[in-house]
Amino acid sequence: MANPTAAMLVIGDEILSGRTRDANMHYLAGELTKHGIDLKEVRIVSDDAPAIEAAVRALSQANDHVFTSGGIGPTHDDITADCIARAFGAHIDVRHDARALLEAHYEKSGLELNDARLRMARIPDGAELIDNPVSTAPGFTIANVHVMAGVPLVFQAMVASVLPLLTGGNPLLSQTLRVDRGEGDIASTLAALAKDFGDLSIGCYPFQTNGVFGANVVVRGTEGGRIDAAMTRLAKEIEL
Amino acid sequence: MANPTAAMLVIGDEILSGRTRDANMHYLAGELTKHGIDLKEVRIVSDDAPAIEAAVRALSQANDHVFTSGGIGPTHDDITADCIARAFGAHIDVRHDARALLEAHYEKSGLELNDARLRMARIPDGAELIDNPVSTAPGFTIANVHVMAGVPLVFQAMVASVLPLLTGGNPLLSQTLRVDRGEGDIASTLAALAKDFGDLSIGCYPFQTNGVFGANVVVRGTEGGRIDAAMTRLAKEIEL
Repeated sequence: MANPTAAMLVIGDEILSGRTRDANMHYLAGELTKHGIDLKEVRIVSDDAPAIEAAVRALSQANDHVFTSGGIGPTHDDITADCIARAFGAHIDVRHDARALLEAHYEKSGLELNDARLRMARIPDGAELIDNPVSTAPGFTIANVHVMAGVPLVFQAMVASVLPLLTGGNPLLSQTLRVDRGEGDIASTLAALAKDFGDLSIGCYPFQTNGVFGANVVVRGTEGGRIDAAMTRLAKEIEL
Repeated sequence: MANPTAAMLVIGDEILSGRTRDANMHYLAGELTKHGIDLKEVRIVSDDAPAIEAAVRALSQANDHVFTSGGIGPTHDDITADCIARAFGAHIDVRHDARALLEAHYEKSGLELNDARLRMARIPDGAELIDNPVSTAPGFTIANVHVMAGVPLVFQAMVASVLPLLTGGNPLLSQTLRVDRGEGDIASTLAALAKDFGDLSIGCYPFQTNGVFGANVVVRGTEGGRIDAAMTRLAKEIEL
């Protein structure tokens, strides 16, 4: 059976302007691969309501799961929760269960639960809360969309809260062979290998270090024995 | 006048599987910002022909420019050039001008210009070549799509070849104020500021370092005087 599929939506002007380098995508990609969920597509959009809504709708329809990152804090540019609600035609307001979490948290920390912070309790009707052990303000899951924070520490904690609840497939395994020759020299060998091992994915990733060209050949699949067989043949044909 | 808009399409299984962390997006974002072109959206798709074609079409229609990265090497998984040609209904084959570049390069280096390497001379009819001073094999521009390599060194050289040819707008300027308080404390101040400075973008990016919560407030715009005015008011209201 094919693995479940996923897409990720990263929301934030700061990444598109080059100010911040996204870290959450790389983290989620690794976690999904281990869990046997295939990440098929990532989109990064700005803090723009129509762009967020259109992307959520498209990705939700095309994939088993969608993971979003960013835009659920207390400031005016945090519009993700409202956009997701609109994308699903769901009513959204400060919700009792999320508010209770924030009240307990801010009472303990001595900070005021003001109107801005209360925005973090805006949760669409019917959504399930996602636990945030780092800073309390929850994420949520509505339909097949998991809405999470952009701060990497919080994002990672939320992924750890959500992922065990999702049915995974076969973890994707991989082996890599480093070849110190240009990829043009090994291309025909790889093409023949890819043809004979149609159940595996054979990727070739060139690099250049100190003026020397080489390539990492990566063989991916879900059956370890098949990967071993492909790697053995590859090593022999490339005559290391 | 509004700045020209751009989108980026990153092509590559190795990024979606978490094996490689993309570097080209962050680089391009910074270069476009300096050049006055607004990066509106990034998509990352796998080495899958229908996914590449659909993304190129959608992004090309919605933006002034599209920049792609990855999938133009000599191996069987390098399918970008053919997908782009199909997306525009253009004929593609080994093209004389690109072949001549490769012949000269491989003659000098003593390597064989075999069938695999010749694939890198597959260029759609009507496309303009993009100069590759690092490893010769060219990128190309067709309609408003600039097709470039995935290897970061080559990608960066191709961006340097293309960007001076494009009409830019006003470079996006920004100033940042670090505030050592939770963003919930300053949210109402920021919301009022954003309302009064509708021509600027006011972003708030929370961080957490050694258990202390704080936020970077970033004010962006194209007029330095306006940014100064907003920062002065912000500093006063937050009473540093």
